[in-house]
Amino acid sequence: MSADRRRPDWVLVVHGGAGALRADIDAALEASSRAGIDAALRRGGEVLAAGGTAIDAVERAVIALEEDPLFNAGRGAVFTHAGTHELDAAIMDGRDRSAGAVAGLRTVRNPVQLARLVMERTAHVMLIAEGAEAFADSVGVERVANSWFGTARRRRQLEEELARERGASAVGTGTVGAVALDGAGHLAAATSTGGTTNKLPGRVGDSPIVGAGTWAEDATCAVSATGHGESFMRALVAGRVAGLMEDRGWPLERAAAWVIARLETGAGGLIAVAGDGSVAMPFNSEGMFRGVIDAAGRLEVAVWP
Amino acid sequence: MSADRRRPDWVLVVHGGAGALRADIDAALEASSRAGIDAALRRGGEVLAAGGTAIDAVERAVIALEEDPLFNAGRGAVFTHAGTHELDAAIMDGRDRSAGAVAGLRTVRNPVQLARLVMERTAHVMLIAEGAEAFADSVGVERVANSWFGTARRRRQLEEELARERGASAVGTGTVGAVALDGAGHLAAATSTGGTTNKLPGRVGDSPIVGAGTWAEDATCAVSATGHGESFMRALVAGRVAGLMEDRGWPLERAAAWVIARLETGAGGLIAVAGDGSVAMPFNSEGMFRGVIDAAGRLEVAVWP
Repeated sequence: MSADRRRPDWVLVVHGGAGALRADIDAALEASSRAGIDAALRRGGEVLAAGGTAIDAVERAVIALEEDPLFNAGRGAVFTHAGTHELDAAIMDGRDRSAGAVAGLRTVRNPVQLARLVMERTAHVMLIAEGAEAFADSVGVERVANSWFGTARRRRQLEEELARERGASAVGTGTVGAVALDGAGHLAAATSTGGTTNKLPGRVGDSPIVGAGTWAEDATCAVSATGHGESFMRALVAGRVAGLMEDRGWPLERAAAWVIARLETGAGGLIAVAGDGSVAMPFNSEGMFRGVIDAAGRLEVAVWP
Repeated sequence: MSADRRRPDWVLVVHGGAGALRADIDAALEASSRAGIDAALRRGGEVLAAGGTAIDAVERAVIALEEDPLFNAGRGAVFTHAGTHELDAAIMDGRDRSAGAVAGLRTVRNPVQLARLVMERTAHVMLIAEGAEAFADSVGVERVANSWFGTARRRRQLEEELARERGASAVGTGTVGAVALDGAGHLAAATSTGGTTNKLPGRVGDSPIVGAGTWAEDATCAVSATGHGESFMRALVAGRVAGLMEDRGWPLERAAAWVIARLETGAGGLIAVAGDGSVAMPFNSEGMFRGVIDAAGRLEVAVWP
């Protein structure tokens, strides 16, 4: 999955979470998760192939993954310590670095959709909890019962964590994200997550934090991260990739690899695309669900290194 | 207020918000706000003079400003569009970049204190809204009625914004923050705010966002920002100052001035201290309440350029 030399007309990269362990993933789960990545790539790729924008493509791809119960975003989100679901998402448009983020959602079916509306229809970047849900009603975004997000698999994961008497699990497996370059040369990024199993209610990780889990600016790159949120926040992962490109003149792949290699704590990875169409997908975990589709006909899905 | 050449044993810098306009501040308000900055400097300075840590000093200084009803943090916080108060804060320890952040608090008297306990007593970096308040109860942090935060002056500001039929005010005047270098050479930063007058409930700005409004790492600097939160989030203000120091080798003052000068939108400023004791306090607004105290006997408070 090396970068193309020639700038492609458009590129879309998605991830379905780092932290995947071979021991936890049987052949059937791996195959259906790969199919989910493939479907999200096709959904977002259709937008770009039709001349659509990067921001539309990443939203479309992330909504597809939110709707897939295998991923930890939207339906299929992990359970908090209280046995509930709290969802976070962010989206960012590289054209002007406009951004929208939501956290602590309990009833919004597609968090990334609400993040985009925060970006487009409010004077704010981030809305959380009850205030965000009131805003969802004011713009007609679909809400569902909190229990709608739950699946038997995620319930078992909570029960396992509780039985071990541990805190939140180290890595939020199954966070989803997308980054895109569109035909007009613009970048965008989006990330959506249910957070970490057994998290304290109210916990927010890196996903909805502009500069930590999500970043996009045309001059450098678009990034969506996935991994141990607290470590990624303290390392300012997404923003550091862009900063290294701007301040040291590094190419995307070098900057992205360096940021992941330098993490002092925390497993995870990121996906990124630069204005020249180059792609990076480094991770330090055993696996990361990821895939790429582009205008030249490339369509690849991978989990392991 | 230029930086000292010789590394002082310790330094503390505080701010009480950028965006101050001469037209809005009469002599009496300016004098009492200056007195509030002076008092916070002395409170935090006592900690450092006694050999205490930077993290203790910034917490102490910010609590002093939260308790002062003139500043937009703790008591004296601005009103949301709904006529309520929602408070945000963050604290970060430069020794290991550990961080704690809270947002959407309605009843916690000293948000920065809760942010510190998130850092020290949970596996998380950020807790928001109801979950954060439940955590406050679990660690015995004082809660108050939401109306306790309100003052007549802040009520008038909301009424003025509502009368103008505008959205949230452009700048959250009166956000508070502190950065410190302690005698052991460690850095820390803290920021606390009520956000912007007339904000939508649930709105979170840059203050509690690690890398946007607050940042500390011994290798570079500690930063606390204040200004138009949405602009500061999209420019990743605090993290960019540190990144420029690390990646371009710039001294603190150059990095800080560049980040503020480069803002495409949004009035505000920041305070910062580096490991060599140098201090920067750039702002692009008409004024910024700020002050410095250090081991060499310096004690300065300023509002205008």
